[in-house]
Amino acid sequence: MVRLGRRAKLGILTASLAVISWAADRAGPDPDGTLHIRDIAIPLSSFLSPEARSYMLHLLRDRPFAGGPSAAQDIKGYRARQDEIMNWFLKPIRARYPVNVEHKTIGGIYTDVVTPADGVAAKNRNRVLLNMHGGGFVSGARTAALIESIPIASIEKIKVITIDYRMGPEYKFPAASEDVAAVYREILKEYRPEHIGLYGCSAGGMLTAMSIAWFEKIHVPNPSAIGVLCASIGELTGGDASFITGPLNGFATSSARPSSNGGAQFRPAYLSNVDPKDPLAYSINSPALVAKFPPTLLVTSTRGMEYSSAINSHNALVRAGVEAELHVWDGLPHAFWYNSDLPESREVYDVIARFFDRHFGK
Amino acid sequence: MVRLGRRAKLGILTASLAVISWAADRAGPDPDGTLHIRDIAIPLSSFLSPEARSYMLHLLRDRPFAGGPSAAQDIKGYRARQDEIMNWFLKPIRARYPVNVEHKTIGGIYTDVVTPADGVAAKNRNRVLLNMHGGGFVSGARTAALIESIPIASIEKIKVITIDYRMGPEYKFPAASEDVAAVYREILKEYRPEHIGLYGCSAGGMLTAMSIAWFEKIHVPNPSAIGVLCASIGELTGGDASFITGPLNGFATSSARPSSNGGAQFRPAYLSNVDPKDPLAYSINSPALVAKFPPTLLVTSTRGMEYSSAINSHNALVRAGVEAELHVWDGLPHAFWYNSDLPESREVYDVIARFFDRHFGK
Repeated sequence: MVRLGRRAKLGILTASLAVISWAADRAGPDPDGTLHIRDIAIPLSSFLSPEARSYMLHLLRDRPFAGGPSAAQDIKGYRARQDEIMNWFLKPIRARYPVNVEHKTIGGIYTDVVTPADGVAAKNRNRVLLNMHGGGFVSGARTAALIESIPIASIEKIKVITIDYRMGPEYKFPAASEDVAAVYREILKEYRPEHIGLYGCSAGGMLTAMSIAWFEKIHVPNPSAIGVLCASIGELTGGDASFITGPLNGFATSSARPSSNGGAQFRPAYLSNVDPKDPLAYSINSPALVAKFPPTLLVTSTRGMEYSSAINSHNALVRAGVEAELHVWDGLPHAFWYNSDLPESREVYDVIARFFDRHFGK
Repeated sequence: MVRLGRRAKLGILTASLAVISWAADRAGPDPDGTLHIRDIAIPLSSFLSPEARSYMLHLLRDRPFAGGPSAAQDIKGYRARQDEIMNWFLKPIRARYPVNVEHKTIGGIYTDVVTPADGVAAKNRNRVLLNMHGGGFVSGARTAALIESIPIASIEKIKVITIDYRMGPEYKFPAASEDVAAVYREILKEYRPEHIGLYGCSAGGMLTAMSIAWFEKIHVPNPSAIGVLCASIGELTGGDASFITGPLNGFATSSARPSSNGGAQFRPAYLSNVDPKDPLAYSINSPALVAKFPPTLLVTSTRGMEYSSAINSHNALVRAGVEAELHVWDGLPHAFWYNSDLPESREVYDVIARFFDRHFGK
């Protein structure tokens, strides 16, 4: 190893290992390998587009999504604040991507049916996508739902049905899985399974994976493909991301020292009764179940708390022989593609649209 | 946003953004978005296998690859030390994966030809892989070269030819590209291009991408597919990885404060005369060239200094319409798969073998 001093400039990189010319910390790691990072500076990623750079600056400096009551304190107020934030994203999406949105009750469940204003493409006439919105299993119905559905419907020229599934704290697992299954069973009366795709972001990405586990349990056929976006097929967090993505979003950059079994965790009321080993909620626990997954798209970003878990899910799927596809964006936060102003978000929309297009059966 | 205090435990995750319950840093970011991370603890990734956990502990505590002269001080001593390290990896690989290794001069260039001890598979009789070894364009010939070639030859039951290309400081770009081209031209006399694959790790991954640019320049046909491993099709470093992977490997966890245009960089003597905008060295500069890439496999890990650059390369390839495939492992350092003791390394070998198998033409 070559040490060129304390500066971060790198002259020589040794043959094969991650040995660069930063000075070694004389204190060393804890006996369990925990590192103490005491004073480093992290600029915005050099790979960001100008638009993404401005957005990151805005997020870090202005914290536009702070404020409002907690879900535990005031669930109605919390949802109102979240919808306000979501509407900030939704407005430009509605301007950019002209679609029709119609309410339809399917299998007893409220859905919004999104179709491109200029019509569904001929090739997609017998195809449909089902969306499960993000929002931490607490919020996002009819707002995040449209943010995730409209660009895809418009770009791929396909019908997207977004499902207002039951959430916490009022409902508990597996209420949302049951709701998705109720819609899916109805959709199967009209569409062949190989003409159906499922996707969702964050909680909705988790619910997408949970739905595949549920379909297996109730013996309905898999859809053609699924998109587990800003999420994983296991718990949402874990790995290095649990510890570094808080700081990488401007949180706990001083004085916070999580214990080695701490880190960011996601334990919403909806999942509070679930055993973390239950494959109906966290498929990754069952390799046999994972092997039955349809082609799976994973999308994540390196400042999103789910990124370690997402890449670990991808590896588990690949190991099980599933056709799984991973896409990652650098230096961007969880679910960044809700912001349609970013060229990176357009890349995500295109990746999602092409993925389903490629996997629909004939 | 919901703030639950200074602790890292997360109760509620807001709807869509990377807002978790870490306490916000009251100091805020610099005007350019640079964050100062002052005191955080990062345990080993929860996704590591027991073997990988032990290996990381060993790397962080014992720094087994430290010591020895710098390449600038004593190139011969530096290479001897690197070969010593590489032989530490090579020994168990030779025991695990029985192969024959024969020297052959091809197109005037020294190569090692690796064939499985129990023979090449019938399907692979007309197929060959070319390997460009890692080692920072300074070292790794005949050692790292075999580490990268033997497991793939053995698992895929295919012939792998690893090229001892010219390196720095004695030689400068494009000497290595010329050497790869010299071998490739000879190989093309025996094999159809759709039966040839190219891959390499670190400097060798960069050289793999450089070779595609060079083949385009000299008008030789593309191989069937390439593997850009622990590397990128642009510069090796960049993005968040330049700033956080040093600390994540136990370097500069205190007192180092790189400027916002600093971070880990890779500027070996071999590339010292190259314009960072030159697409012959860094293909990512030319979208037209990127669009001509054959199917490309990218493998990286989140404690490898190349990971941001690797994922950014994947996005550039996908944007250009190239069939590109990304695999990432959490919490592991640059080129971790040189260590054949890790189940994660076996996953990498399998991913590489299956990728080429899938992309060879009939």
